[in-house]
Parts: sequence; structure tokens; C-alpha cells
Amino acid sequence: MISCDSKQLRREGLRTELMTARNQVSIETPVTAIDWRLGNLEGTNIRRSRKLLKDLAEVYPNHASSGLAPDTEVYSVQWWAPAREGQEGGLLWGVTHLQPGRVGDEFFMTHGHYHAVETRAEYYTAVSGKGILLRMERGGRTWAEEMLPGTLLYIDGRHAHRVVNTGDEPLVFWACWPSDAGYDYATIARDGFGLQVLQRSGETVLVPAAKEQNVTSID
Amino acid sequence: MISCDSKQLRREGLRTELMTARNQVSIETPVTAIDWRLGNLEGTNIRRSRKLLKDLAEVYPNHASSGLAPDTEVYSVQWWAPAREGQEGGLLWGVTHLQPGRVGDEFFMTHGHYHAVETRAEYYTAVSGKGILLRMERGGRTWAEEMLPGTLLYIDGRHAHRVVNTGDEPLVFWACWPSDAGYDYATIARDGFGLQVLQRSGETVLVPAAKEQNVTSID
Repeated sequence: MISCDSKQLRREGLRTELMTARNQVSIETPVTAIDWRLGNLEGTNIRRSRKLLKDLAEVYPNHASSGLAPDTEVYSVQWWAPAREGQEGGLLWGVTHLQPGRVGDEFFMTHGHYHAVETRAEYYTAVSGKGILLRMERGGRTWAEEMLPGTLLYIDGRHAHRVVNTGDEPLVFWACWPSDAGYDYATIARDGFGLQVLQRSGETVLVPAAKEQNVTSID
Repeated sequence: MISCDSKQLRREGLRTELMTARNQVSIETPVTAIDWRLGNLEGTNIRRSRKLLKDLAEVYPNHASSGLAPDTEVYSVQWWAPAREGQEGGLLWGVTHLQPGRVGDEFFMTHGHYHAVETRAEYYTAVSGKGILLRMERGGRTWAEEMLPGTLLYIDGRHAHRVVNTGDEPLVFWACWPSDAGYDYATIARDGFGLQVLQRSGETVLVPAAKEQNVTSID
């Protein structure tokens, strides 16, 4: 039922085109497809990026002493941008694979960012794994929501958002956001989030972030 | 892997909250979840609507002689609107269950509509079933794309869009669209689409729409 088989897509596409050729109206085969089981995007024009531990130095200032290789993958992103960045009213679609792991006692997580345009919302929805969405208002108030397979999260355009993998397998989640949302990573790189997600005695705990991160207020 | 169990969501939520109570920072359990297997939305504030054959009279002018009951369900929609309709930058998320069936030789389909704001795009992505997305530009040029499990379709804000179920099971697809896209159903109700999707001798065929639908140009 819930599956994507690109060979099947092509085969069915071919068959349907042959079938309709006699009627002079063809059915086009879409170029982009989702693999719901694995959380992958397939097709042309899919962009990909990887974030390694060394790319997250400001998130994990002590990563050098963690014993992890600097080239350890923390997460990867695949996205489709049929609208150009900055275009009003367009939408982008992507998927993130956030690996399980910790730097010391702090779980693997995404950089996190604000949208440059604060009216622009976003959806996150998880397909596998287990984790936490950290949300933060400008000013530092931070809170946490669970992400489990099927969770659908609406992210207000004013909220910084960061995902943390608290499980033992990759946390995979789809995202859909406006092509003119823009990205403000700099504020997070400077101030961090108001909460950290740590493993302590085998439990997942949330603790106020270290003071040097200059968060001005924490609930 | 790809599953949503609302009981599990609640149980995990409870456990995590208890676990974090000692640390005075709780993890919230999101109120909305997706059942990827069945294509359902669960949670609070989910809206629902059903379209019966009698609601689609302008789409199927001859439905009374089809032998189908006027109360036959053609499709249903579930959607979540965390942003208010008309709000700039917000996003809505929904799922459509389009039943298999025909009125005479014409397959079951959605009303179809233009967005009132023509810069506002939309994504459709199918999880089960089989069908066709009809797209039409103002002026009438119409074309068809396949929808199979995993298909991800980007709908330009200028294109009218209608989905047709050409299979034997419900065609289920997710949608994500801007909360200020708006809906222009009236143009389609008046002019129709440039193509009809029919079953002829057991095959799925596309034919130019009947002339009385006033479509001005067809590719």
C-alpha cells in the first residue's frame, strides 16, 4: 500500500502512455517521487547536503574531545525546489535523516534556524525514529515536543526550530516550507537554544542551556 | 517503521513527561498525527468534509441516469488548519480519499479548482491507489500526470488541479498549501477541464472534453 517503487512508476508510466497513444493524449510520468518507507526523495533535481560533526562546531564546542571522528555524519537533507528560493507563494519539500548518537551526553541534532521572514510557517512530519522538536521564540523561551512516526508539527514562522534524535535509529522527517521563508542560522549559532537535550543515567532529560550561550530568558 | 499509533504517541508522551518531571522541563505531546498507512489525520481540530455524487452535479450532468445513488460518496477530505484561512505565510495540510468508481464511463474525480491567488503553489503526494492529476492553465490547455504511491507533484499556483481515480481502490493523497491560496471553484464549475478521463473497452483514455464546457483551447 504505502510504497514507492520507481521501476513500477516507470513501467506503469510506459504502459499508460502506450495505451493512450492511440487517443493522441499522453499521460506524463512525474519526475519526483517519495519513498515513504525509507524517507527518500527520488527523481531529477533533488538536492542533497550532509552535515558532519565538524560542520557543527558551534553546536558542540567540545566535540574534539568526544572521541568521535570529525567526519561523522550527523544528518543529511534531500530537498526538491521546484520554486526558486525567495519566490513568493512557492513551496519547497525535503526530508532529513538525523543519525542517532551523542557528543558526550548531548544528543545529535540539527543546526536549527529561524525563518528570515517571520510570517512563514513550516510543517515537519516524522516517518521513522524518535526525537524531539525544540522550538524557541526570539528572547529565548524554549520548549520541546515529541516526534514519533506520524507526528505532524506546525511550526509558526516566528519560532526557531531544531530537531534532536533521542532514539537508537535514524530520525527521518519530511518538511514543507515556503520558498520565500529564508533561513537565519546566525542567531542560533550565536545564542543557541534555551534547552539542551541530554542523556543522563540512561534517561533523556531537558536542561537549561549553558549560560555562555547568552539566552536572555528561559521559561 | 512507517506507522502511527496514537496510543503509542500518548503512552510515550506520558512516559517522557514523567521522566522529565524531575527536571522541571516537560516535553509536550503534539496534538496532531498522521497515519501513513491509512492516510488519516488524527487529533484535535481536524476538519472533515464529504462530497457525495449529488454534490458533483455540474461535474457529472448525467449522474441521475447512472444508476448510482445520489448519496454515493465520491471523496472525503480531512484537513488541519493551524493557520487561519487567508493568513499570509501560513500552511494547511490535508488528505483526500477519492473512491474508485465511474459515472457512466467517466471516473470518479474531485471538483478541481484554481487558487484564488495565482502565485500560491501546492503539493500533492499519493500514499495509495492509482490515478491521474489533471492540470489546466487559464485558457484551457490541459494535461495529465500519473499519481501512484509515492508520487510527489508540485502544482504551480496558476494551474487548476483535479484528481481522477482510475484504479480499483481508494486513491489517497496528502496535500500541503498556503493558507492564503484561496479557492476558485466557480471557473471550473462553469468551464470544466479540457480533458475527460474515461474507461473505454477496459482501458483508461483521455479525451477532449465535450464542447458545451466552453474550453477555449486544448493542446
